[in-house]
Amino acid sequence: MAAWSERLAGVRGVLLDISGVLHDSGEGGGVPIPGSVEALARLKRSQLKVRFCTNESQKSRGDLVGLLRHMGFDISEDEVTAPAPATCLILKERGLRPHLLIHDGIRSEFAQIDTSNPNCVVIADAGESFSYQNMNKAFQVLMELDNPVLISLGKGRYYKETSGLMLDVGAYTKALEYACGIKAEVVGKPAPGYFQSALQEMGVESHEAIMIGDDIVGDVGGAQRCGMRALQVRTGKFRFYIYLTLTCVHGMRPSDEHHPEVKADGYVDDLAEAVDLLLQHAHQ
Amino acid sequence: MAAWSERLAGVRGVLLDISGVLHDSGEGGGVPIPGSVEALARLKRSQLKVRFCTNESQKSRGDLVGLLRHMGFDISEDEVTAPAPATCLILKERGLRPHLLIHDGIRSEFAQIDTSNPNCVVIADAGESFSYQNMNKAFQVLMELDNPVLISLGKGRYYKETSGLMLDVGAYTKALEYACGIKAEVVGKPAPGYFQSALQEMGVESHEAIMIGDDIVGDVGGAQRCGMRALQVRTGKFRFYIYLTLTCVHGMRPSDEHHPEVKADGYVDDLAEAVDLLLQHAHQ
Repeated sequence: MAAWSERLAGVRGVLLDISGVLHDSGEGGGVPIPGSVEALARLKRSQLKVRFCTNESQKSRGDLVGLLRHMGFDISEDEVTAPAPATCLILKERGLRPHLLIHDGIRSEFAQIDTSNPNCVVIADAGESFSYQNMNKAFQVLMELDNPVLISLGKGRYYKETSGLMLDVGAYTKALEYACGIKAEVVGKPAPGYFQSALQEMGVESHEAIMIGDDIVGDVGGAQRCGMRALQVRTGKFRFYIYLTLTCVHGMRPSDEHHPEVKADGYVDDLAEAVDLLLQHAHQ
Repeated sequence: MAAWSERLAGVRGVLLDISGVLHDSGEGGGVPIPGSVEALARLKRSQLKVRFCTNESQKSRGDLVGLLRHMGFDISEDEVTAPAPATCLILKERGLRPHLLIHDGIRSEFAQIDTSNPNCVVIADAGESFSYQNMNKAFQVLMELDNPVLISLGKGRYYKETSGLMLDVGAYTKALEYACGIKAEVVGKPAPGYFQSALQEMGVESHEAIMIGDDIVGDVGGAQRCGMRALQVRTGKFRFYIYLTLTCVHGMRPSDEHHPEVKADGYVDDLAEAVDLLLQHAHQ
């Protein structure tokens, strides 16, 4: 690989994933990843622009920011690009009235949305609300529509909580796609429009921006397809891949650093190392 | 299409799907489809061999046959090819110890199977047992295996109960496949080996056999790929497609009689019409 100075030259803006980069989510809001509070503070004191780009769809933007601030992170609501507010804009633009298959923690984001006589389904990381009954209701709504529209807040396979790996919305979206014979529209990473709106809100062109995340497909691959650079941290769900590499050399799931299609522009241990490198080499 | 006499010539054996052909499942076991009890009786009085080939994975074979006999159907347990007993044979042959994501109604079929320290997951139509917690447990078991094996009892998208359409096991199998990055092994229709074992048990070659079912992909397409002929009945889930054709001419889901890839050898209103035609034209 080229030297860091070359790989990071000209970076003016940084998009940060939240879960797995700032903190590991979980009971009571989770725990900060060691060194991340201080690393974010250093990054925000620099000349680099910073924005947060998350697929969090269990908590409202306000609740998420509240939790992170409580852990010591310097973050405010208007710095966060999140899929629920982005979805509300789309619903209003297109006159869509959703049946909501979502977690109660995010219901407040949809308070201004008309949900009567639904003409689409919105699916988010509903967690325990992914009961058979709730999934079947969403399926039946879709099957009764002449032109079924399914909007999925992200398409993550799973995420890491302090208690272990948890199925994410993408798995349940696949279930509805297969049952109904349709394709969901994704609002969230890795959808190009989602990264573009985050870049626009940050006021930085894609070639001047870098994404930092723990998901090789959702964060790294998605950002690169938009013309950005991307670093993968070895925290969050990444750590599980390391374990897989050691235990499952001939297994079916590739380790992220050997993903068959996506190569990050660099791999770092954690946000702290990423910030060290950025402050040393970016904006040159 | 050719005349019925040509299409049904030389048929010596009939494989019958159960749900949607004999009865509609649902509360209290469901209801027989009008004319099917009598049609089955006529078929069994003929020279044609008869076997039942089902993907039922919520009820044990004994319970299913008990319900059908109670409705008046002439059926016995040893005439039924069902995915749970077929799966048990595979588990024993390969020394697999399953984590079971199944409906309680079928648990008795696995009574002789070692489920300690699981090295695979078996997924069936678990219905209400498809909770987030149960799905996540199966996901975690798979992710901890060096060589994750997922066995799915059928891959149906949905089925029709008296109360409406219900998500079937295939949707949940897709969810686990996507989350784990693996491909399930299917035991049940439309897997070729499953049809072949039913033919063997009936003692009829594929070119002498015909499948009668309501599922264009699982029944008709699967049987045809094994060299059998296949009729689709307009009962069971088929009736829902008729409704779709009328309300959703430009929709995304094709009506079965216009399925892009699969064409049945004939379409009949119900089992009664299929039996009329078979008794008139088969075995000639």
